[in-house]
Amino acid sequence: MSGAAIAINSAISGAAYYMAIRMIPRFRDMFIKANLFGNDLCKKDKPQVPESFGVLIGCVYLVSLFLFIPIPFAFDEAAATDAVTGGKPDTFPHDKFVELIAALLSICCMIFLGFADDVLDLRWRHKLLLPTIATLPLLMVYYVNYNSTTIIMPNFARDLIGTSLNIGVLYYIFMGMLAVFCTNAINILAGINGLEVGQSVIIAGSILIFNCIELYLGHQVESHIFSIYLMLPFAATTLALWKFNKYPSQVFVGDTYCYFAGMTFAVVGILGHFSKTLLLFFLPQVLNFLYSTPQLFHFVPCPRHRLPKYDSKTDLLHISTTEFRMEELNPVGRLMVKTLQKLRLISWQARPDGLIRTNNFTLINFVLVIFGPVHERVVTQMLMAFQAVCTLIALTIRYPLANYFYAKT
Amino acid sequence: MSGAAIAINSAISGAAYYMAIRMIPRFRDMFIKANLFGNDLCKKDKPQVPESFGVLIGCVYLVSLFLFIPIPFAFDEAAATDAVTGGKPDTFPHDKFVELIAALLSICCMIFLGFADDVLDLRWRHKLLLPTIATLPLLMVYYVNYNSTTIIMPNFARDLIGTSLNIGVLYYIFMGMLAVFCTNAINILAGINGLEVGQSVIIAGSILIFNCIELYLGHQVESHIFSIYLMLPFAATTLALWKFNKYPSQVFVGDTYCYFAGMTFAVVGILGHFSKTLLLFFLPQVLNFLYSTPQLFHFVPCPRHRLPKYDSKTDLLHISTTEFRMEELNPVGRLMVKTLQKLRLISWQARPDGLIRTNNFTLINFVLVIFGPVHERVVTQMLMAFQAVCTLIALTIRYPLANYFYAKT
Repeated sequence: MSGAAIAINSAISGAAYYMAIRMIPRFRDMFIKANLFGNDLCKKDKPQVPESFGVLIGCVYLVSLFLFIPIPFAFDEAAATDAVTGGKPDTFPHDKFVELIAALLSICCMIFLGFADDVLDLRWRHKLLLPTIATLPLLMVYYVNYNSTTIIMPNFARDLIGTSLNIGVLYYIFMGMLAVFCTNAINILAGINGLEVGQSVIIAGSILIFNCIELYLGHQVESHIFSIYLMLPFAATTLALWKFNKYPSQVFVGDTYCYFAGMTFAVVGILGHFSKTLLLFFLPQVLNFLYSTPQLFHFVPCPRHRLPKYDSKTDLLHISTTEFRMEELNPVGRLMVKTLQKLRLISWQARPDGLIRTNNFTLINFVLVIFGPVHERVVTQMLMAFQAVCTLIALTIRYPLANYFYAKT
Repeated sequence: MSGAAIAINSAISGAAYYMAIRMIPRFRDMFIKANLFGNDLCKKDKPQVPESFGVLIGCVYLVSLFLFIPIPFAFDEAAATDAVTGGKPDTFPHDKFVELIAALLSICCMIFLGFADDVLDLRWRHKLLLPTIATLPLLMVYYVNYNSTTIIMPNFARDLIGTSLNIGVLYYIFMGMLAVFCTNAINILAGINGLEVGQSVIIAGSILIFNCIELYLGHQVESHIFSIYLMLPFAATTLALWKFNKYPSQVFVGDTYCYFAGMTFAVVGILGHFSKTLLLFFLPQVLNFLYSTPQLFHFVPCPRHRLPKYDSKTDLLHISTTEFRMEELNPVGRLMVKTLQKLRLISWQARPDGLIRTNNFTLINFVLVIFGPVHERVVTQMLMAFQAVCTLIALTIRYPLANYFYAKT
């Protein structure tokens, strides 16, 4: 009876929410004393705000799930212990059990490495390495458990390649890259009050809705129940964090939280077997990444901080800018900039002497390019609304699309 | 063929040692910049030494074991995947598999919480809570896997109680307390250059020797091979840390390392089913704990730091002291102090006005009480030698004792 297990999971999630709400304000001074704080640059008085509260939320999440470990198996008739011998029946879902532990190991490892990153201020190349390390246990368990690396081909490719294709080691590389993408995608769409947590709330909600639809349709029931087990406590702790991180932020969440959220999403995507749908829920992050590429890969000069500029007179955010001359860019950079200008996706100020000033290429600045100066709270709300719209689009196109590409012909 | 798996484990351990040796010096500046450092008070110039290097060693250890996850099952014939169906055979050692992952989860969680403790400087009550949290996954997996809480009674109790006794929830409390004890026992026998790491090297070596003896005798082969899998990389990374932490310390290890080491020992003791023998290897730590109780539980005044005093003229360590009047102590405290004085286990200076000065009750100070002022390097060596002697005693008495108490009569 997974109904009872989900009920207990909900109860644990409720308790986790309550615990988190009580703990966050009590730990603020301790974080500041430990030198874990930042100044909120988009406020008049630039207040000191404690940083890296993802670590506290991550701990509450882990403890909740540690306590939940035996529950799914206590209510599963297939897992019932033999009353006479005390042994486990042949039907015991060993694979599910080890998957749950491995998922927690990957998430725990990611929170730990994220916190180490926050404290030690690691370099950029480490930011790609850390999620790879944290996915290792998951990939290893997948290897021992299934090692099935066969993918089903879409209809249009079946004539060429066949119905399915074993992509071997590429499958593991894909899973590793999914974790790297999810963790860093949230980390680069960040910087204004509440945005990291806000987008995670919407994504977690989208995943839960998707799980419920699939359960209703009777598709891969076990995978989606598994996803709910991990997502409900995540949504609960994230909502608690949102209460303190939304505008005006009383706490910052740090890389720790971005890594934690991204890895949790990646884990349910991988183990729930819906990694493609998951990527649909990451549409704003994908767009932000694509829009950022000219600066991330240094085709266009990239200042150290690309946050919007704060105007203390009006309390509004303005675009932050980067300056360059066309002749300084290499041909690829020039093509990128020209295309973006043609499509009116960037602001454009050309001085007579040839110096060009555009906004920094982030989704936050893009919102400001379109709507002009906007209040910080509203920017976060707009981006969250966009995230929600993307979920609607994703769900609306997913079912027809999947039928079109993968229908049994 | 676990021989091949152990060979690969040794190779990974060698690589881990090499990686750790290379990484430690490179990260020193980063730790100092992140405010993670302490001043070495037992040196003439009180140099700044980076702190919490247990976190780096812990990461190297985790990555090594993540990579090792599939190896034991790749070489196990009972675990060989069915070549036709790709499924796992009935003989697949599911329990061992999930135990390995759960062990890593507990260790990873402990390193993470230890690092959080180092950074946030948590309170004493948290120091007891953190290992309990980190043991949770292990206990939960034990509960789902076996839930066998029956202990075999020693001979003298069999007439009263029977051959075995199901102690139920007490068994879980025992396991949780073992983890709390192991982690904190190493943490309180600490404070001079190299001591935390030195004692861990000896304990890890003792466990490995014990595993080999048991393998030779053919006792519980699987459990002891499992212990070797976890202990070899631990010994390797610890030796690398020793190279930099021994007198004069270039790096400090932090609570992170003490927790990491203690939890790794507790995990192999619990899952290897030799928790009683493990406690024998912790004899110096047990003695230190017992000797410390009058101060730990505040029967005798306990200054914030109980480290020996450094004399910069002679470069030697002297005992540090605490002062009190007999009439200030409660009856239990008075009895404790009197007994220790009678047994000549503490130094004793009584002033005419009734003020009494004794050494602080730690094993380090006890060494100085007996041998007088000693050089820091030599104190560590003496305590390591004592640890080694205790292992010899433990091994010598364990086999006859076990036969005496548990022989089939």
